[in-house]
Amino acid sequence: MNRVYLDHNATTPLRPEAREAMVAAMELCGNPSSVHAEGRAAKALIERARAQVAAAFGADGADVVFTSGSTEGAALTLANRDLHGSAIEHDAIRSWITEDLPTLQSGQVDVSNPEQSTLQLANSETGIVQSLPNGLAVTDATQAFGKLPVAFNWLGVQMALISAHKLGGPKGIGAVVLKRGIEMPAMIKGGGQEMGRRSGTENVIGIVGFGAAAEAAARDLSNGIWEQVREFRNILENALEAGSKSTIFVGKGQDRLPNTSCFATPGWKGETQVMQMDLAGFAISAGSACSSGKVRASAVLTAMGFDEVTAASAIRVSLGPLTTEEDVLRFAETWLEKEKKHRARAA
Amino acid sequence: MNRVYLDHNATTPLRPEAREAMVAAMELCGNPSSVHAEGRAAKALIERARAQVAAAFGADGADVVFTSGSTEGAALTLANRDLHGSAIEHDAIRSWITEDLPTLQSGQVDVSNPEQSTLQLANSETGIVQSLPNGLAVTDATQAFGKLPVAFNWLGVQMALISAHKLGGPKGIGAVVLKRGIEMPAMIKGGGQEMGRRSGTENVIGIVGFGAAAEAAARDLSNGIWEQVREFRNILENALEAGSKSTIFVGKGQDRLPNTSCFATPGWKGETQVMQMDLAGFAISAGSACSSGKVRASAVLTAMGFDEVTAASAIRVSLGPLTTEEDVLRFAETWLEKEKKHRARAA
Repeated sequence: MNRVYLDHNATTPLRPEAREAMVAAMELCGNPSSVHAEGRAAKALIERARAQVAAAFGADGADVVFTSGSTEGAALTLANRDLHGSAIEHDAIRSWITEDLPTLQSGQVDVSNPEQSTLQLANSETGIVQSLPNGLAVTDATQAFGKLPVAFNWLGVQMALISAHKLGGPKGIGAVVLKRGIEMPAMIKGGGQEMGRRSGTENVIGIVGFGAAAEAAARDLSNGIWEQVREFRNILENALEAGSKSTIFVGKGQDRLPNTSCFATPGWKGETQVMQMDLAGFAISAGSACSSGKVRASAVLTAMGFDEVTAASAIRVSLGPLTTEEDVLRFAETWLEKEKKHRARAA
Repeated sequence: MNRVYLDHNATTPLRPEAREAMVAAMELCGNPSSVHAEGRAAKALIERARAQVAAAFGADGADVVFTSGSTEGAALTLANRDLHGSAIEHDAIRSWITEDLPTLQSGQVDVSNPEQSTLQLANSETGIVQSLPNGLAVTDATQAFGKLPVAFNWLGVQMALISAHKLGGPKGIGAVVLKRGIEMPAMIKGGGQEMGRRSGTENVIGIVGFGAAAEAAARDLSNGIWEQVREFRNILENALEAGSKSTIFVGKGQDRLPNTSCFATPGWKGETQVMQMDLAGFAISAGSACSSGKVRASAVLTAMGFDEVTAASAIRVSLGPLTTEEDVLRFAETWLEKEKKHRARAA
């Protein structure tokens, strides 16, 4: 039987539109900094992709600076700024901030000084969506972009981080989006690419894939594809809830990403569940992908007030635009069987 | 008539081996940090590519840390270290060094304190190859890798920068190669990828392309393909020399990359030549691609002692593995016609 991939928040398959654009870009040889025809053609591909990303992210008129992804974007926008943030941010953000913003039980973060703070738009583990305060310095919009209607120009933030591979583009390409005129000292210096803000010969194929994927994701979003996904996610949660009384659904009453379900079955370790479900043909995760190799409780859940045992027993199931009702029902059936066995062993 | 691309030091077409490997990798969805089967499959692709790059670069047993290219590699290995270097380094290197190492007229750089210095292996504009002193801190091997027989393990350097797109891989991916056990503080932090030295979800498709291109480039090199290229380069220079008495060939008697010809026709601006040749169907460059948008004399040539007028009149013609004798002869014929017209106007 085919495997069922339910880890779309870790990364999601390349969209056909991205694939096609990338394969076409492979034929083009020039260096975008070269002044000859080949160079200008490569440059034109980049600028087209920049416009696609800006349009999809509601950021017309803002600056889009391509990076190798949101982790680089975090270093570029946060290093040496000592901004405030919370423990529910991604590790790439947590590397640079003073972690003193409190997280409420609802998963919402209380921001006292927006101009000196960073706050994610949506959490990768729970899917919980934040209300961003006006004037916020930096938002990590990596998980939200493509899944939620977001317009940078209406967010009221100075800078946002986005990444291609969360919305069907390739891994290793992303962007910092910032209000025009804002200063952002370069971290990677040299040839002066990206208006001097991020030097280095551009990842042309990746940028082209990002542009095509962003455009396709925006189209899917406006066509309501995530409402269908939300319905399947709810079907999944209802099936699990009906079969397992001890399972806690995190953020269920909150404003959440439509595709994300985070649930904990206290005492049954998340990693164990991930491995058992993997062997049974399902790809899911415990915590965010970057840290899922490490055995520790979810920092997101502990920040929300869950105890260590519960936090260590959480898994994340994240659906994609092509996930079917059959996929989630097969997952629920298999997971409930394993949960029953776990209870039998634990008893 | 087809265009003739003679700007391979700026960037070179994607090799079919890289293209094929990249297209195959597009089918794979997992995040290399995920523990499930899809994640492990992505991780395996990266480790295969890492072995391919290490083998091609003669760096078995050394560490290969994937970056977004040599410009990032320069920041990663040089920032906050105040190493010494020369004015003939690429701008990505020059951004971080104390520029006090003298360049001789031969183009060779005099390194007094290798442990505290950086020196390129080959120059991108002139192709001149340096004799690296033992114990050198960092070498920029971007232009040399793939064109010269190089073995990192025999270079006697601590760290080297390499980039995929100079040898037929995609743009936007490269690596820092370093002796095992050397410390290198991370610049981009977060999920702990690349053994904690360079976080961020990996550019899987790019890495796979780098691996395949490096392997193919190493095979071409050992098959002697560059000896053929060297012959065509020499045919080109002999034809130009025979037709234009006032043209100076830079580094002609020196140990040079086999594919590179840098020549100056004092008074005829390099940018003008690039534009005229572009209109005539030939892609070449004046200076290195990153800075070719800027109108200024080559820093490399002025460092070698050439006057401003000569340095501003230099162009670079760089051949690729598939360049033909017909290509260089067509170039020579067209260029000599234009040079004749230039002399007529100047007279």
